Amino acid sequence: MILCDVGNSFLDFYEVASQKRVKIKVDDFSKSCEFYSKKVYFISVNARLNYPSTWINLESLIDRSRYYESMGIDRIVACEALHNGVVVDAGSAITVDTMFEGRFEGGFIYPGVAAMKQCFKNISPKLHTEFNFELNLDKMPRNTKDALSYGFLAPLLSEIKRYIKNYIVLTGGDAKLLKPYLPQAVVDENLIFHSMQKIIENSNIEKKKDIIRC
Amino acid sequence: MILCDVGNSFLDFYEVASQKRVKIKVDDFSKSCEFYSKKVYFISVNARLNYPSTWINLESLIDRSRYYESMGIDRIVACEALHNGVVVDAGSAITVDTMFEGRFEGGFIYPGVAAMKQCFKNISPKLHTEFNFELNLDKMPRNTKDALSYGFLAPLLSEIKRYIKNYIVLTGGDAKLLKPYLPQAVVDENLIFHSMQKIIENSNIEKKKDIIRC
Repeated sequence: MILCDVGNSFLDFYEVASQKRVKIKVDDFSKSCEFYSKKVYFISVNARLNYPSTWINLESLIDRSRYYESMGIDRIVACEALHNGVVVDAGSAITVDTMFEGRFEGGFIYPGVAAMKQCFKNISPKLHTEFNFELNLDKMPRNTKDALSYGFLAPLLSEIKRYIKNYIVLTGGDAKLLKPYLPQAVVDENLIFHSMQKIIENSNIEKKKDIIRC
Repeated sequence: MILCDVGNSFLDFYEVASQKRVKIKVDDFSKSCEFYSKKVYFISVNARLNYPSTWINLESLIDRSRYYESMGIDRIVACEALHNGVVVDAGSAITVDTMFEGRFEGGFIYPGVAAMKQCFKNISPKLHTEFNFELNLDKMPRNTKDALSYGFLAPLLSEIKRYIKNYIVLTGGDAKLLKPYLPQAVVDENLIFHSMQKIIENSNIEKKKDIIRC
């Protein structure tokens, strides 16, 4: 089974059997792509792309009314993976969403690592730095690099910790950078794909397709 | 007495007697400026400007060794106003600094309102919004505008609240926007000037000048 999470910049493929992930730039996606003619289950926040007829959009299987109208389908699918807990998706933005007994309780959006770094740089070239991800957040910083690293990390983590009751899952490209500060968190970089698999299984879409084929 | 806080974009003047503030763009500052030939006590983070001989830089009166090397003189002077407490200076960046028994305990830097707004917009045009400063932070948001407003406000406030023991003072152009979320805070938009006044008084520089003049 091949799954794909289509963003604005990349198509992110996941082959379930091999657990292999392949990222392809949206601009490089064409008929010559190895996945183009295959059966691919996908979700997409990209309104500009056209998809091959062999591709199956999973969005119709999801009850969007349980979330809010403008919420991205990728964020919704990540939430669908949880019954109770907090999903932190650390990508270009960091989304923090809470689920309680299968119900979406709300969530917030914070800048991702690269976006925050650029944000500080735009305020002043003096605030241009790489973040220190080994910083001890129990002590107030006493130099600019640490003051900026702390300003990115500590407020976010203070807020996340308000919502952790039982389960917290970290996903997205920068999940591993946050993990040392959230030792109780589970890192699942393939959360969205595991959730897509579950949605497919629960919908019986695979079986129905086979029946239609017979 | 005329005081001036020189930044990278503006010269911010304060006439003590009238409590009047006048902002002049750095590029517009010339001999024709009404304050140019006057006696002005100033601090400056602007390394490019030259100052008239009648102007007196207060930096030499401050013991910088109590702070960290790259810390801006404006941030240091704001801290000098406090013996115990937290200074939140909400400008283009938001600095949060802690003082304990007259000692600088450290501080962090967070993006200012305009910088954070631009940061979200740079991540995606879909994240372009004005922040909602009437948002109830006790409930997780359920729409994009509130998710972004919450993402700006709640983490910052959660972190600030960790450090509030006795006294908290809010200053800077956006101090009033944060005040409703920090009811215990004192807003002092002229904090830096009040601190400059105190530094001048404690140094006896005014008296010494008069003696020299006699």
